[in-house]
Amino acid sequence: MYDGAVQDLIDELGHLPGIGPKSAQRIAFHLLAADPADVRRLADAITTVKDKVRFCEVCGNVSEEERCRICTDPRRADDLLCVVEEPKDVVAIERTREFRGRYHVLGGAIDPMNGVGPDDLRIRELLGRLGDGKVEEIIIATDPNIEGEATATYLARMLVPMGVTVSRLASGLPVGGDLEYADEVTLGRAFEGRRKVG
Amino acid sequence: MYDGAVQDLIDELGHLPGIGPKSAQRIAFHLLAADPADVRRLADAITTVKDKVRFCEVCGNVSEEERCRICTDPRRADDLLCVVEEPKDVVAIERTREFRGRYHVLGGAIDPMNGVGPDDLRIRELLGRLGDGKVEEIIIATDPNIEGEATATYLARMLVPMGVTVSRLASGLPVGGDLEYADEVTLGRAFEGRRKVG
Repeated sequence: MYDGAVQDLIDELGHLPGIGPKSAQRIAFHLLAADPADVRRLADAITTVKDKVRFCEVCGNVSEEERCRICTDPRRADDLLCVVEEPKDVVAIERTREFRGRYHVLGGAIDPMNGVGPDDLRIRELLGRLGDGKVEEIIIATDPNIEGEATATYLARMLVPMGVTVSRLASGLPVGGDLEYADEVTLGRAFEGRRKVG
Repeated sequence: MYDGAVQDLIDELGHLPGIGPKSAQRIAFHLLAADPADVRRLADAITTVKDKVRFCEVCGNVSEEERCRICTDPRRADDLLCVVEEPKDVVAIERTREFRGRYHVLGGAIDPMNGVGPDDLRIRELLGRLGDGKVEEIIIATDPNIEGEATATYLARMLVPMGVTVSRLASGLPVGGDLEYADEVTLGRAFEGRRKVG
């Protein structure tokens, strides 16, 4: 509907996740009216990320080197491995400053409805990391939804027989939340996982 | 939170309209995992739009030339001018194939709450186009919301004394819609603008 270059941009933006035709049009016109230096910075950031960033060959996290900062950090514990779905989960856990072990990023969760099976995730790489016997506990921190639970169950079934301790992050009431607004499943989990006090 | 280039990209994407931190992160990881050729096409589309596209010096629509396709089209009527807020409105009206006149794009609507006054719109350029006396009717097609109505009122007050016919697009029930779901204002306008049949 638009002249060449504008329509090309709308089409390209429309391929991004979560960007529909209306948003693509809105962003395109925003860029048209924006400061050229800002637009140049966006275009550069896109090409740079592709040139410089790759996935860590050990854990699968994003990295600008062959091995990421966490995998090469000598202060991290080698006996504790936290398995997550995506690099953004690593960031979320790092923010808590609670975890001092290392990570393994699966690159997603088992999701047969969308054609994602175990072979599409970095599970073989995870098993490979257990070969030297250093890892003693694996904390499965996949998302608390159907796909994440299925992935956790699949991994546990594979890992427990290998003699490693496998744990799953606790489910329960979110801190600062309101009990009456918790959904039934979360509330049920909170009862199940109740802890003795005093 | 991320290594340099990924964080840079998330920051740049976060400056786009309608893109929050979560969407920015999602898009950044999508690009990281995407085919390099696709990513290159997106970056190119962004820089190209900035290099090639400008605003038509006559009507303010987007154009790859000094004057846009519609302004240079000899088959369009010179006596009929449709005033819209944004280039996307031109596209919407062109899609109806109902209008054979020319356009004037204001670049927004009067919106004092967001600091947009008449001087921030292309109103002086609109008045300039009436100098040769060719334009006989101006159809004001600003959005049917508070800002669009205010802009229409402002323009009408200025244009009517100049001896030009000024009209406003009809408000009423959307075709294919359901009467019971129409809001009160729309339904009120539909009564006001009722037309005799038969």
